[in-house]
Amino acid sequence: MTRPLKIAFAGLGTVGGGVVKALQKRSEILEARAGRPLEIVGMCARSRHKSRGFEVTNWVDDPQALAAGDADVIVELIGGEDGPALALSEAALESGKHVVTANKALLARHGAHLAALAESKGLALRFEAAVAGGIPIVKSLRESLIAYGVVTVRGILNGTCNYILTQMEATGRSFEEVLSDAQHLGYAEADPTLDVGGGDTAHKLALLAGLAFGMTPDLDHMPVEGIAHISPEDIAFAREFGYRIKLLGIAKATAQGIDQRVQPAMVKAGTPLADVDGAFNAVMAVANDAGPFFFEGRGAGEAPTANAVIADLVDIARGNMGPAFGIPAHSLISLSPAPAGSAVSAFYLRFQVLDVPGVLAEIAGHLAKWRVSIESMIQRGRAPSEAVSIVMITHETKHADVQRALKTIALSDKVIAPPCMIPMEAR
Amino acid sequence: MTRPLKIAFAGLGTVGGGVVKALQKRSEILEARAGRPLEIVGMCARSRHKSRGFEVTNWVDDPQALAAGDADVIVELIGGEDGPALALSEAALESGKHVVTANKALLARHGAHLAALAESKGLALRFEAAVAGGIPIVKSLRESLIAYGVVTVRGILNGTCNYILTQMEATGRSFEEVLSDAQHLGYAEADPTLDVGGGDTAHKLALLAGLAFGMTPDLDHMPVEGIAHISPEDIAFAREFGYRIKLLGIAKATAQGIDQRVQPAMVKAGTPLADVDGAFNAVMAVANDAGPFFFEGRGAGEAPTANAVIADLVDIARGNMGPAFGIPAHSLISLSPAPAGSAVSAFYLRFQVLDVPGVLAEIAGHLAKWRVSIESMIQRGRAPSEAVSIVMITHETKHADVQRALKTIALSDKVIAPPCMIPMEAR
Repeated sequence: MTRPLKIAFAGLGTVGGGVVKALQKRSEILEARAGRPLEIVGMCARSRHKSRGFEVTNWVDDPQALAAGDADVIVELIGGEDGPALALSEAALESGKHVVTANKALLARHGAHLAALAESKGLALRFEAAVAGGIPIVKSLRESLIAYGVVTVRGILNGTCNYILTQMEATGRSFEEVLSDAQHLGYAEADPTLDVGGGDTAHKLALLAGLAFGMTPDLDHMPVEGIAHISPEDIAFAREFGYRIKLLGIAKATAQGIDQRVQPAMVKAGTPLADVDGAFNAVMAVANDAGPFFFEGRGAGEAPTANAVIADLVDIARGNMGPAFGIPAHSLISLSPAPAGSAVSAFYLRFQVLDVPGVLAEIAGHLAKWRVSIESMIQRGRAPSEAVSIVMITHETKHADVQRALKTIALSDKVIAPPCMIPMEAR
Repeated sequence: MTRPLKIAFAGLGTVGGGVVKALQKRSEILEARAGRPLEIVGMCARSRHKSRGFEVTNWVDDPQALAAGDADVIVELIGGEDGPALALSEAALESGKHVVTANKALLARHGAHLAALAESKGLALRFEAAVAGGIPIVKSLRESLIAYGVVTVRGILNGTCNYILTQMEATGRSFEEVLSDAQHLGYAEADPTLDVGGGDTAHKLALLAGLAFGMTPDLDHMPVEGIAHISPEDIAFAREFGYRIKLLGIAKATAQGIDQRVQPAMVKAGTPLADVDGAFNAVMAVANDAGPFFFEGRGAGEAPTANAVIADLVDIARGNMGPAFGIPAHSLISLSPAPAGSAVSAFYLRFQVLDVPGVLAEIAGHLAKWRVSIESMIQRGRAPSEAVSIVMITHETKHADVQRALKTIALSDKVIAPPCMIPMEAR
């Protein structure tokens, strides 16, 4: 048991640096947990001589060289769904090395392939840090919520989006203004597309759905909508109806197949997901008879993410070697997607219209034609002839029917902006 | 990998029956997760011929006989901190069998001893079902929140108490009335002492503290207070101040030692623990730099608890064999308790007094003498000469100082009931 676990790092940014520092500072207690020493035998990053707050040792210039080195585990923190991250992961597994990664894009695309490769070699592929930062949701879905199956997973998986939505609510300011502030504060990337467009949430949701349903992660059947079109008005109306708007990754097992999507949704105030503020992440998993489970924690940052990587390393040191997605890669099913638009929920709808006679009749007529029935409505008066907002909450309706009705309504010359539709997601 | 894991059950009540049914109904998927079949080779319970909804096979009359049988794992669901549960667990480990148990009382008293025995034999001792039902908090503290250490654990660990407090708040009725209803509905035991007196929470807290601090579970240095003295008036005042009353198990690492206690506490409305309703359980663990983690789920019942036992069995089938409390039993530290009363917090105080001149001056005088300063106060008028309630929120104060002040105040002939003190616990 005293042979060290030899670890090599490809990538020494926030996550990698955090892991190195924690391994150095807390080596004694981590050795007790791992049952043997955790030894760093290789480091590699874009720039060797950057100031990092720790000593760079065992440097190599080319990450691919790590696969040929004497490490037992490669920690892949390069990023990107193909290219060097994929090449290194494949080469590492081919040459008998475990892989720990925080790379959701890589695994959302190649997770099943890499899991199969790992299992064929008797190796571990671990990725706790790829989803929801420090929250042990990957391990929980893989090893804990297993006896009754999981029917639904809903997650707040992108801290940047949740921070922006929380700030929009707190200040009443627009998406653009809050995003720009977040960029200045370093809470959002210079190019925020992957975050605010929902792509990052999609990668993470694909992994959670794979774990929950014993399924090959699948980005090809996943509608993805970001938060750029959410207005302060929508957030204010949501509050008036007793809801908060959150960007959710949603995966549900339905009678017609798996329904997975990334979408801003109305979440009822006072339920756990609604109360998740700022950069925190959270996941609600409904495990059939075993009921709902709720997990919340920091979604990003050095310590939460490094914590997740270290938990994976300790698992490997201990010989905890189960399959990456909880069942053998060859038994992972392929996604049978629920037909597009077959999901049923209530909706929040907002129409910006000219304040002229007949506009409400016209909108109501189109909704009725598609059997979309209205539960409640708010219309706020403004100065005569100015644009006004008509806001409705529908009864439960097929998504496709609402989409069809809105398509026709959008063609009206009395409707001056694309209608906004946001589903209400129950607990 | 195809040799089955042979399992024997001592106890076939709600938990054991649930595990047997799930193993029978979902054998294929559980075999995929476990990497090998999970085979039942022994069953034992108080009564053989009770109707249970599944076939009883491989019956033995004496639970102790299971230790001599051919099982790989004994699932101990007898209950009780000594007696047959302890004898069976020791005999099972002595004869080379892993032990899975839901028995918090047993482990709170003998956890470190049984862990050491298991490790000396290279065996697993697992107890996910012992704390917070289906919530994977034991695994998360043991394997996931490990890189930075844990400083605080706060939990709502007893569903009966949380149900009673939730009902008292919803209906305005007294503890006795709500308890009596809960007993009729089967939500509370005929003898509710272990639940409402805080003892069950204490057992669970001892295990969480052991896992969080790498410590021998210790019931001897843990003040325990139940909920029987909480009045509808306290709950109403709490709401007025923006708080809810919850029975918490609290374990904190402080500069003076570990402060662990079971106590009704004021939890700020809108924070995750305050929103835990009914029979749900929840745990907030603060993992230093990695931040707060929050877990919520069903705390009891067949499926949640059976789910936890099955997760432990699958871990053992896979060979996940780390030490019971995360670090080797011989390195578990002994509790260094923080001095009694050294904890600091704000307090809710309620005095039932005669409405006569000078009573407030007298109370205020005694509080001032012990340096307890008041942040806010409510006094409600009633008919002249009737008893009135004086309610105060203090600034942060040492528990011992408040206790000393109240002791003197209770002696006053103007104070007609023992004063009520409830600490405010921040997130």
